[in-house]
Amino acid sequence: MQCTSEQHLDGDILERRFVLGEIPGILWTPASASASSPVPLILLGHPGGLPRMHPRLLERARRSTAAGYACATIELPGSGDRPRSAAAEQARTDLHRTLAAGQRIDGELIDRLVLPLVDAAVPEWRAVLDDLLGRPEIDGPVGYAGGIISIGIRLAVVEPRIAAAVLFAGSYVPRSLFEEAPRVRIPLLVLLQWDDEDNDRQMALDLFDAFGTTEKTLHANMGGHTRVPAFEGEDGNRFFARHLR
Amino acid sequence: MQCTSEQHLDGDILERRFVLGEIPGILWTPASASASSPVPLILLGHPGGLPRMHPRLLERARRSTAAGYACATIELPGSGDRPRSAAAEQARTDLHRTLAAGQRIDGELIDRLVLPLVDAAVPEWRAVLDDLLGRPEIDGPVGYAGGIISIGIRLAVVEPRIAAAVLFAGSYVPRSLFEEAPRVRIPLLVLLQWDDEDNDRQMALDLFDAFGTTEKTLHANMGGHTRVPAFEGEDGNRFFARHLR
Repeated sequence: MQCTSEQHLDGDILERRFVLGEIPGILWTPASASASSPVPLILLGHPGGLPRMHPRLLERARRSTAAGYACATIELPGSGDRPRSAAAEQARTDLHRTLAAGQRIDGELIDRLVLPLVDAAVPEWRAVLDDLLGRPEIDGPVGYAGGIISIGIRLAVVEPRIAAAVLFAGSYVPRSLFEEAPRVRIPLLVLLQWDDEDNDRQMALDLFDAFGTTEKTLHANMGGHTRVPAFEGEDGNRFFARHLR
Repeated sequence: MQCTSEQHLDGDILERRFVLGEIPGILWTPASASASSPVPLILLGHPGGLPRMHPRLLERARRSTAAGYACATIELPGSGDRPRSAAAEQARTDLHRTLAAGQRIDGELIDRLVLPLVDAAVPEWRAVLDDLLGRPEIDGPVGYAGGIISIGIRLAVVEPRIAAAVLFAGSYVPRSLFEEAPRVRIPLLVLLQWDDEDNDRQMALDLFDAFGTTEKTLHANMGGHTRVPAFEGEDGNRFFARHLR
């Protein structure tokens, strides 16, 4: 992992941008983290596009570093400044055209949108995790927080170092990922925005029901996709405090 | 209000049993509460039967007094040592017979079980509230926490001193109470036990949807009716801290 820039924010947080192979990412650590006092790690998931997402990710990282966690995120394959894939671009074009026409997003399109992304992103997250857990100031266990929920599901199934996850409900979950949900056995906090215009509420409730863990909690709040209340950040920290300490 | 017994618990809490007219109840106050430092009040709802419910109510009161609230509860009309009503006893007999026969509890029976109770209990809660808010060590605003959810709905609609409520989802909600839900305009935290054998999950979700406030949050956890996780008590305190301070 190569550090490409480094800055101290407010004296409390160290923000390091890095590249691991072709994967750009950001690592935030509390100033107090050190080899003699390592901190647990939370992976911050997001829908892709780091430059656009940075303010919201930084806000989440501030809250989590203040609670004593390191946080890391990566750019998703095909997003931000990363090379585009022709198939992924075609799927996005088809999505926007379907939405503009007011038509239903069918399973075939959801598969094309999400499955290649999950298949590409999950190994990248795991490679970044290998590197981060080799750092002296970072220690396990590891949490995953955020979207894309399909990436969170797959990571929770295949990556034993992920000990707990806060997942943001989203609708475009391929059938095959839905079928992986019973294999998720780690504690979950699922956040659902009740009025999410891009989210099928019943599908989100069915997915919550399908997760295989008995330690799962659903928090539903009013408002659309980006209106998650600030207090859910605190609730997420307390959830991780119960399961990562 | 006549105090019938008084004891200090752990040095931190004063537990006073009282009678107001025919209404028996319990008031718990933090030892620190005084006329110069009054505390907000949380009304603890429960399904009736104070002797049986006392251990769980005390546990809830301990958590809330530790967070700086006074707590009060009353015995419901027709429960515990209070006089029985023939109609209510008949409704309970019919409920048990219907459940034993594995039959569906219909709306007519739910009305008979719940409506007279709501009509009797809500004025009693309000009379107790008048008295409690006259005490120098207790101050508004007031929260309501617990079941019976139909009592919570009616109180939230008719009692302007109730500023926020934590409601425990339950199934036996008369249609007319369901229709009052859009008139609930105060912040709500609704707790749903996902596997509650006595609870129609879809009905609970529909009721959550029907509440008229935009500041509502649903917390769903696994397990049956009495398996609300301990951390929900802390979450409830934080909810009240946002709305009663």
